[in-house]
Amino acid sequence: MSDIRVTVWNEFRHEKQHEAVRSVYPDGLHIAIAEGLKEHGITNVRTATLDEPDNGLPAEALAETDVLLWWGHMAHGDVADATVDRVQERVLNGMGLIVLHSGHFSKPFRRLMGTSCSLRWREAGEHERVWVVKPSHPIAQGVGPYFEVPQVEMYGEHFDIPTPDDLVFISWFQGGNVFRSGCCFHRGHGKIFYFRPGHETHPIYYQKEIRQVLANAVRWAAPAVSFENPYGMQKAINEKQALEPIQ
Amino acid sequence: MSDIRVTVWNEFRHEKQHEAVRSVYPDGLHIAIAEGLKEHGITNVRTATLDEPDNGLPAEALAETDVLLWWGHMAHGDVADATVDRVQERVLNGMGLIVLHSGHFSKPFRRLMGTSCSLRWREAGEHERVWVVKPSHPIAQGVGPYFEVPQVEMYGEHFDIPTPDDLVFISWFQGGNVFRSGCCFHRGHGKIFYFRPGHETHPIYYQKEIRQVLANAVRWAAPAVSFENPYGMQKAINEKQALEPIQ
Amino acid sequence: MSDIRVTVWNEFRHEKQHEAVRSVYPDGLHIAIAEGLKEHGITNVRTATLDEPDNGLPAEALAETDVLLWWGHMAHGDVADATVDRVQERVLNGMGLIVLHSGHFSKPFRRLMGTSCSLRWREAGEHERVWVVKPSHPIAQGVGPYFEVPQVEMYGEHFDIPTPDDLVFISWFQGGNVFRSGCCFHRGHGKIFYFRPGHETHPIYYQKEIRQVLANAVRWAAPAVSFENPYGMQKAINEKQALEPIQ
Amino acid sequence: MSDIRVTVWNEFRHEKQHEAVRSVYPDGLHIAIAEGLKEHGITNVRTATLDEPDNGLPAEALAETDVLLWWGHMAHGDVADATVDRVQERVLNGMGLIVLHSGHFSKPFRRLMGTSCSLRWREAGEHERVWVVKPSHPIAQGVGPYFEVPQVEMYGEHFDIPTPDDLVFISWFQGGNVFRSGCCFHRGHGKIFYFRPGHETHPIYYQKEIRQVLANAVRWAAPAVSFENPYGMQKAINEKQALEPIQ
Repeated sequence: MSDIRVTVWNEFRHEKQHEAVRSVYPDGLHIAIAEGLKEHGITNVRTATLDEPDNGLPAEALAETDVLLWWGHMAHGDVADATVDRVQERVLNGMGLIVLHSGHFSKPFRRLMGTSCSLRWREAGEHERVWVVKPSHPIAQGVGPYFEVPQVEMYGEHFDIPTPDDLVFISWFQGGNVFRSGCCFHRGHGKIFYFRPGHETHPIYYQKEIRQVLANAVRWAAPAVSFENPYGMQKAINEKQALEPIQ
Repeated sequence: MSDIRVTVWNEFRHEKQHEAVRSVYPDGLHIAIAEGLKEHGITNVRTATLDEPDNGLPAEALAETDVLLWWGHMAHGDVADATVDRVQERVLNGMGLIVLHSGHFSKPFRRLMGTSCSLRWREAGEHERVWVVKPSHPIAQGVGPYFEVPQVEMYGEHFDIPTPDDLVFISWFQGGNVFRSGCCFHRGHGKIFYFRPGHETHPIYYQKEIRQVLANAVRWAAPAVSFENPYGMQKAINEKQALEPIQ
Repeated sequence: MSDIRVTVWNEFRHEKQHEAVRSVYPDGLHIAIAEGLKEHGITNVRTATLDEPDNGLPAEALAETDVLLWWGHMAHGDVADATVDRVQERVLNGMGLIVLHSGHFSKPFRRLMGTSCSLRWREAGEHERVWVVKPSHPIAQGVGPYFEVPQVEMYGEHFDIPTPDDLVFISWFQGGNVFRSGCCFHRGHGKIFYFRPGHETHPIYYQKEIRQVLANAVRWAAPAVSFENPYGMQKAINEKQALEPIQ
Repeated sequence: MSDIRVTVWNEFRHEKQHEAVRSVYPDGLHIAIAEGLKEHGITNVRTATLDEPDNGLPAEALAETDVLLWWGHMAHGDVADATVDRVQERVLNGMGLIVLHSGHFSKPFRRLMGTSCSLRWREAGEHERVWVVKPSHPIAQGVGPYFEVPQVEMYGEHFDIPTPDDLVFISWFQGGNVFRSGCCFHRGHGKIFYFRPGHETHPIYYQKEIRQVLANAVRWAAPAVSFENPYGMQKAINEKQALEPIQ
């Protein structure tokens, strides 16, 4: 995939309402995330936000997106079900989806997981250490055996998700919890990566290792089979002709 | 689990409308399935059907069910969304769910999988050979390295499901297809088993090996953690107190 | 499995040489482990130790063992290769194997994993919190969402093992590390469980939750297919007759 | 990975002894396999064979190999254990390994799997249909929902391997068997792909889809973490300093 088409989606509400968020991400979280990708040579990046028409994700925009990143938190309920339908279908047809931090409770992620996606959480300014547990995975490239995030909101187990296809990172938290922080899933023709770190009041999306992981994840999630045989939410295929003779 | 409480759910429409089905399953598919379990010492079995109040699955019935078996085909759309909500929540709280054959397209299964669950299919009276690929799994017990089903409807790959936690059976079909026929999933506190063989016009639920597998599956899917800590679709848990001191 | 035949194997060297170990486990670690199983109704338990003939595991002893527990540390190299051969073959034929703590570096475990099984470690008297990440798994039964071990030797990631079939526990350590502490593997007809906690100078095998987990693990690892079709390290099977006509 | 360094290893005995093999692969299987990779733009390819010094794989050769392909059949026992040690260590340090067809019984594969790797087999000139079951996987790219191989030696389940990290292909055989034909494993820092099709008397390594899969597999197996932190078969790491204060 020489030129992956990326869309960074952001709820973009906190930034408008809370000075504490705006001071960290003056142009919005999506802009900081997009800049991080560009630093790593992923340049075909556009952004979309909740309050645009069709939640910023009309069918045409999705049709031109290879990998979608999703950041949401305070307004999950405002995402239209029709938007969720389109995202789900596009993932099953091959689009990569990278779900960030509080996006664990977003409608598209819950729809695609089929579970509650609930977890334990705490805001206490503690620090996190993210350990690599699958060093052969492309998403783990370039961050060493572990890296630290100085100040975070804690997410803890049990995290109610399906068993990941690949578990890449496990986080340690100062306050005594652990979390499966980097989880890969295959769904239909598409690939999904959930990445825990990231918050609206901490400058996490400027951190070197975080940007490395997100760039790795975009490259991993880019469609492998180039949408050659999409099936999406379609009905089953009636095989009228047998492939072999049946006596 | 000494006395597993089982509910066999059947759509129970084909039997009322089609003589070809009634001649094979005069009392309904659910009765044949329940009898198979009883042969294997699973005796606390009741049945429920689509056209009963609350689709036969009011909250009280689910609260007394450890393992639910689901057979549906022609009327998936008639299952109320509220019923699907209750089944999903109960599975996440620990109930086992065994989805049979055409139940791959049922609402509860699609909800819990998050994918289209589409597949290839053909009705040509061909035969099927079910191979064990995880012989250490309790569901594979007692059926040898493979068993045959004389006449079946074919289901073929690609089967659009999440990667199973355990793949127990792969089927060979005379007409040239293969299928992941026995798939285990963990979701929340609950366990799910999808089992492919079974059809309304073939006497498959009377077959010895099929009954063995269903009994094995009920025992495997029975709740491990005895509903001691249910969370269902609940919100995340706010950990107000850290477990360790945070400087 | 009504009456699982268990053998608890212990290197039994530390206890003879180090007073600090003898004061905690006066009769040997194997006796404390066996007692814990008996508390949970697993009564058909015998023990074996390294310095007995055939390392305590002659063919006849293995032939009467359904589940083998393995504790070793200072004398891994003294286990004969022929013993490792017998254990590997018996596992592939269906025997359960539960590898404890420093057994990660034992010859049978490394043989069955195919990797180095290396890890990070530290002896600093810190405490550990073991989190359940697969609450639907039978091995997680009865210990709540997490439990603590007051004083431990730390084991940290990266732990060089194959991806587990089921990841049941993840540990948090006071000193800043995490570890996949409860890992299930299927190999041949047999099941393997690695369980991290346990040490020769800490009274961990007397702890309530540890004993619960070990009893759960023995029941999970007991052979599912009752050695009906063993193949062990045998050659491939030449299928002289096709199962279907070949034109 | 812009320029993956590939070594194609071939036993190269059949070709010298059997005219039936030489007529299909006059220069050896390794040459046909290498040519297939070059067609797909993987040009940094050399070959090695069993009867060269150090089995063609001295330490220096492995140190310059990113991905090793392995074809062996009649002389598995002639591969020196020291060669197996070097290959295993290099894989754990990050080298990709692609094991072809009868290589399922090779020493390096059995060492890295820890199981017998036995299977059922039959030589009857039947045909095979290889189905994609994980269409989102990069190795499945470009071959459609399935492809056929006109004449093959059959390999059938049960195939005694650890559960693959990713199951990409399942084969259907005319004679009534199925097989997990494309299996991915992560071991240490390295990735392993087992690919079933391929035989010394059938022109399988000239087939378009086979060459596509092998090229995909080389790109997938190329080291992700560029050998930055190799650990191989080394001892555990003693963490003398805690990462966090311990009271």
